[in-house]
Order: sequence, then structure tokens, then C-alpha cells
Amino acid sequence: MVNDLCAELLKSYDDGNDGNGIYGERLANRLHEIAKIGLTKDNGSNRPGFSKGEKRAKDLVAGWMREAGLDVHTDGAGNVFGRLEGKHSNVPAILSGSHVDSVPNGGHFDGPLGVLAALEVAEAWRETGYHPNKPFEVVIFSDEEGSRFSGGLNGSEAMMGKGNLEEKKKFHDQNGWSFSEVLEDIDLSVDSYSNAKRNPTDIEMFIEVHIEQGKRLEKKGLPCGIVTGIAGPCWLELTFEGKAGHAGNTPMNDRHDALVAASEFIVEVNKLPATISDSAVATVGKQFVEPNGVNVIPGKVTLYVDIRDIHTETRDRLVNETLKIATSIAKTYEVALDTQEKTRVAPVPVKKTIQKDLERAFEGNNMECFKLPSGAGHDAMIVGTELPIAMLFVQSKDGISHNPAEWSELNDCVKAIQVLKTFIEDLQG
Amino acid sequence: MVNDLCAELLKSYDDGNDGNGIYGERLANRLHEIAKIGLTKDNGSNRPGFSKGEKRAKDLVAGWMREAGLDVHTDGAGNVFGRLEGKHSNVPAILSGSHVDSVPNGGHFDGPLGVLAALEVAEAWRETGYHPNKPFEVVIFSDEEGSRFSGGLNGSEAMMGKGNLEEKKKFHDQNGWSFSEVLEDIDLSVDSYSNAKRNPTDIEMFIEVHIEQGKRLEKKGLPCGIVTGIAGPCWLELTFEGKAGHAGNTPMNDRHDALVAASEFIVEVNKLPATISDSAVATVGKQFVEPNGVNVIPGKVTLYVDIRDIHTETRDRLVNETLKIATSIAKTYEVALDTQEKTRVAPVPVKKTIQKDLERAFEGNNMECFKLPSGAGHDAMIVGTELPIAMLFVQSKDGISHNPAEWSELNDCVKAIQVLKTFIEDLQG
Repeated sequence: MVNDLCAELLKSYDDGNDGNGIYGERLANRLHEIAKIGLTKDNGSNRPGFSKGEKRAKDLVAGWMREAGLDVHTDGAGNVFGRLEGKHSNVPAILSGSHVDSVPNGGHFDGPLGVLAALEVAEAWRETGYHPNKPFEVVIFSDEEGSRFSGGLNGSEAMMGKGNLEEKKKFHDQNGWSFSEVLEDIDLSVDSYSNAKRNPTDIEMFIEVHIEQGKRLEKKGLPCGIVTGIAGPCWLELTFEGKAGHAGNTPMNDRHDALVAASEFIVEVNKLPATISDSAVATVGKQFVEPNGVNVIPGKVTLYVDIRDIHTETRDRLVNETLKIATSIAKTYEVALDTQEKTRVAPVPVKKTIQKDLERAFEGNNMECFKLPSGAGHDAMIVGTELPIAMLFVQSKDGISHNPAEWSELNDCVKAIQVLKTFIEDLQG
Repeated sequence: MVNDLCAELLKSYDDGNDGNGIYGERLANRLHEIAKIGLTKDNGSNRPGFSKGEKRAKDLVAGWMREAGLDVHTDGAGNVFGRLEGKHSNVPAILSGSHVDSVPNGGHFDGPLGVLAALEVAEAWRETGYHPNKPFEVVIFSDEEGSRFSGGLNGSEAMMGKGNLEEKKKFHDQNGWSFSEVLEDIDLSVDSYSNAKRNPTDIEMFIEVHIEQGKRLEKKGLPCGIVTGIAGPCWLELTFEGKAGHAGNTPMNDRHDALVAASEFIVEVNKLPATISDSAVATVGKQFVEPNGVNVIPGKVTLYVDIRDIHTETRDRLVNETLKIATSIAKTYEVALDTQEKTRVAPVPVKKTIQKDLERAFEGNNMECFKLPSGAGHDAMIVGTELPIAMLFVQSKDGISHNPAEWSELNDCVKAIQVLKTFIEDLQG
């Protein structure tokens, strides 16, 4: 929530540049320039995926890519790649980046930081005259947030040839525009989108820098950390159906109150993750009560459980335990239970060997190394279904994200870029 | 849900008339005639309080009152009184009746049955040549349901000089019409409304026949029962305020989930009434979750507790216990709690001596006597704040009410009228 993002970032910045070519001032200025596009009245970001705003932000970054000596290419899904050829140009490239689209009134770090961090590595190399052995590409994925349609990650899915195109064709945005119409408005098309798939053998690894959107690093007082895996969400829709009745005229012992059953379920589900793993979480975030009248016993409650862990085995065990508890509670209260799985995305753990390499990059920069899971999905989750990935999280103030108050300290961002640069240099073999 | 209510009622009617002048056929026909006014597409009733529909229904009944030899008078609140002078006309009158307004898609028994039951007593007396010692008045109260404004019982409140007229003046209906404009549309006014108060010394007692709107009588297999008291509701608005957060990125041990706290509260409140009294009930019928997103930990939950009992002492004890539990749970989960009392109506117990007299009327008709509380509010609740009252409940099919499927068997209705008639005759001294 700042009018002058750049000035605000620089306030607490203690120039950490030690001749490595990374400049916090440049990063702050660029974050600010991107933030100007789609700035909301709350000083937040509004750059929906596949919008003109997202495209302007991509064009702005593409200009900086060219200035940094990168070859810029945009694919049929609007993904932008800025490529620096390596000494060996026929080996798979190392990719790093993120996205520049935002949720409707989001922050200025979620996405742009990852793109600019990768670009800053290329800038630093240019400045210091370093030339990598392997090709390096800075990538801007389209529409990560999915605030336009019902699902996001549309750019990374196109590059990986993932996702269901037939389903996407049925998407309509709030204005009633179809997926096809939205693409055509920015000179793309469903055809070009479906041709965006890259050959996975052209890519060695994808590395994404992103804000944590949680409070773990802040609590540890650390600038950044190693992501151990990206938790795949499983969403369950549960409907408890009892019997509505007059709140005054139905004795307590003759009730089938759907909300009491649902409430006991919510209390029990909250206790489950601790019995499964440290990284497991389960949340009931959305609930509807029917008929929802002060003096009417609830006849029906529909609720949604979001269940996550970074390993498929523990996540799926948590899903099963959740369903077992729901069934048992429905039986106790003699209410009907309907369960539907709305989504089940496979978790993407980060390989132990890659985590080890990241640890060395932290040590190389004399930084304390802390590991944490990613509860949220990222483009790395899609790329990681087939290719090796790494992720670095930067400390988020108060864990706030998808909100104009989203904030990360410039010192912390720069430190993450130093680790990123070291890590990529170590990959050059 | 019947097209021909009269025919449907008569299907299972075994003419119980034993020369006492009460005719089920007349009652069925009159229920049908009233049902035609404001009939909905679901075959339900739609006669909001102070509407033209309610007025047409009152006029229809007023015509029958005159045919039965009653003197008809309408007061400034639209309440209709059909008076039969007693042999002694200077003694307080016995009043019996109910209302003819309905909820938007209600049934055909809630209200009209009580009015027609009282009228049937007068009809029976006329037929059998019985002349009571005391004046008897059949009453139709205006706007009992309150589906027009935020509160009902406006007719009985006017007669008793209860309710807050300044508050009522602020009422606006769905069309934006003020209380005053609504009254003027049917040739009443706020002035005439405020002059409708009757001298309580003119009334000895009010007796209301009403459908149970619950399942107690059906479970006992009894046509009707004695109401022991009318439970006064206390409505509490509770707001649990925790901290919203990303469902994926917030560890389970770092949450202040408002919905988990609210859910534990709902589970605990459901257990409370049994510890207080047999007639006590507590219900959370309405709940709002914010921001209500699948992947967002709920930051705020607002819910409403409806607490009732027929005795003030136990009802208020239940309110206090409810608040205690809320406070304790909010503390456990470290969430903020705000509590507001939205309404607190005094319960109206029926005098033990009157219950005894009603028992004798059951015995006089060779009927089994069963006593039950009224969880819902009725006009008798308002009259009962100052005057003696009695209530008879008629069996409701499946306990369904405020719904086109609302149903009571004609045999049961007629039996209740027999008890009513005997009871009133026994009062003649």
C-alpha cells in the first residue's frame, strides 16, 4: 500500500552489492514500474491473466530483457522467454522466472519478483562479464493466478502441454468472454495456445523465486528459504443434509440439525493434520447454510475442505481420514452425507539432491538455510510434473498476500537473488 | 398443497357432530374460501399483514360473523372483533381467535383455523340455542406473521398497547413503503393504530386455537393438546473474529480460524438445553463465513442463536450459559468475540388453574389430555403479557408449517373446537 513503491523499498535498503552485479535499486525501480500498470485505488495491482494490463507488463519486461542482451520470444500462449545463449548452445536451458498477472486487488511482489530476480541474474552476469556454459532463459508465464477464469496456471500448462484444452475452451470470464475471445483480444488464439508446448528435453530445470505468502520465514527472522515441495490441493465438497424445522417447536431430541453435524466435522478436521505430518493442512474455508434463517433448524450445509501436503501419500491419507470422519459424524447425527472431489492436484516435492545444491548456495553466501513447504500452487508445480524444479521463498511481511498490503523487504529480495545466482552458476558444471 | 382444500379435508372426515352444532363441513369450506385469497402457484397462501389480501380475508370472515349474529367492529389497527353479547353484558368478555395473514408462501391453517374455531363456537351456540352469560368475541388480529416488516404481532400489540410505536414508524416493507404508508393504503393510519388499545379490564381471557407446527402431538397420536406456555425467544448475534490466511501457507499451529471456533461453539450449544429443562431449545440457524473462499482460512464468522423456554428463569439461564461457552471457546482459540442481544421476549406461561380447567374440558369430551410447550410466538403471547390466556394446539402433519404442505386433519380440528367450546362454556360461571 504505497504510492511510491520504489522509494518505500529503498528506505530500509542497505546496499548489499559487493561487486556481484546485483542492484537492489534496479529491482526496486522495476517493481515500481510494473506496479504502475493496473494500479488500483487501494494502491494494489489489477492485471488479470490475458488482459491488456498483463500484456503491457510483459512488454515492459521484454524491453528490459532486450536491454540486458537477451533474445526475446513470445510463444502462442503469451509466455515470454528472454534467452541468453550459453557457451554450449546445444544443451538444455536453465529457466527461471514467474508471472506478472495478479488477482483483482493484489500486491506488487507475487509474480513480478520472480521474473525480475531471474532478469537480475542476467543483468549481473552482463555487468560482471560472466558467460554461462548453458543457455539461460528468463520466463514470464501467462495467467498464473486464474482470476480471469475458474483456473489459473494457463501459461505454464501451455508450455508443458498440460491441462485440458477442451475444458479451457468452455471457460468464460466475468464479462462473458470465452477463452478463445479473450486470447484473440490480445492477438493470440486457441490454436496458437495449443502450439505453445515446448520439448521438455530442451529444459534442464526451472527455478522460481516467489514470496512465501506465509509467516514461517518472518518467525525465523530469515530473508529467504528453500522450498521442499509444492503441496497439491485436494478439494472436497461435502453436503450434510438433515431436516429443517422450527427452532421453537422442535424438541432438542428430535432434531437432525445439519449445521451441528457439519460443525462437529469442522472441529474434528482441524485436529487431523497434526496426526499425519508437519506439512499437512486441512481447512474448511467456505460454507453455506440452508435455509439460513434465525429461527429455522438448518436442513442442509454445504462446505468445502481444502487438504494439502507436499507428499502424495500423506496428502491422500489425510483425504481418506477426512472422509472417514465425515461419514462417522453423519451417522451419529443421522443426517445424509454427500461427498464430491472437486480437484486433486499431485503434490510436487523438490528433489533431495536439488535441495542439497540449494543448501550449498546458501552456505556460499554465508546465509542460514531454512526449509519450508509451499502450501500454495505456483508455475513450478506445473513444470515440476515433468521436469526438475527448485524454488526459493522470500520473507513476506505478516504473511499477507493477494492484497495491496503484500510486502517483502528489498534486502531480503536481493539476498534471494544472490542465492539464485550462485545456484545457477553452480549448475554450469 | 391441494387444489380443492375443502374436498381434501372432507376425504378423511368422519362426521363427528353429535348435535353440538359444530360442523366440520362448514369449517372445511371456510378454510377453503380463505385459502383462495392470495393462493400461490404452489397452492400456498400469500397474505402479508396489512395487505389488500389480508383485508379481503378479514372482510370475508366479517361477513360470516354477521351471518352468525355477531356485531362486527374493526379497530384502528385493522383488528376485527365479532361480539356476541352475554346475558350479563357489563362483565369482561371472553375473546378467542387468531389471525388470517400468512408468510409469503405459507399454509392454510396457521391463523385461519384459530379464527374459524372461535367462530364455529358462536355458530354452534346459535344452532343449539345456547346463550352465554358473558360477552364472547371472535377476534382477527392484524399482521401476526410479520412477513411485511421486520417484526410481527402488530395487531395484538395495538390492542394491548404494547410494542414501540416509534420503532414501528421506522419500518419499511420490501417495496420501500413505510409503516404509515402501508396502513394508509388500507384506510388505516398511525393515529388510528395508536388508538386501538383496549381497556384490559374489558377482557377476562383470550383463548387461541392454533396448529402445533411441531411433531409432538403426531408422535403421541393425539388430535390436540394443552399449551403450557409460550416460549419467549432470545436472539443473540455472535461474531467470532480470527485471522484470515492462505489455507495452503498457514501451518495448523499458527491459525486463528474463526470457523473452527464458531463450530465448536455450535456443537457445545446444542448440548446445553438438556442441562436446563425439557422445554428449553437453542438453535444456530443462520451463519455467515467471511471471506468464504475455499482456500482462505475464515477470518470472521457471524452467527445467530435462537434460545427459548417457557419460563423466564430457565430461558435466561440458558442465555447466560450460552454466552459463557462462547467466551470460553473464543479464549481457547484466541479469537475475538462480539455478542449482541437482538431480541428478548418474555416467555408467557399458561396459569396452572387455567391448565386444570382445560384438562376438565378434555375429560368432558372423553379425550386424552396432553400438555406441551409452544416454541413459537403467537398473538396469545402479547395478550398474555397482561391478561390470562389459554391455548390449544392441533396436530400438524409432519410438523410442517409456513409451507404450502402445512396440514391438519379435519377430525383433529373439530375435536379441538369441541374442547374450546366446552372450556368457554365452563367459564360462564
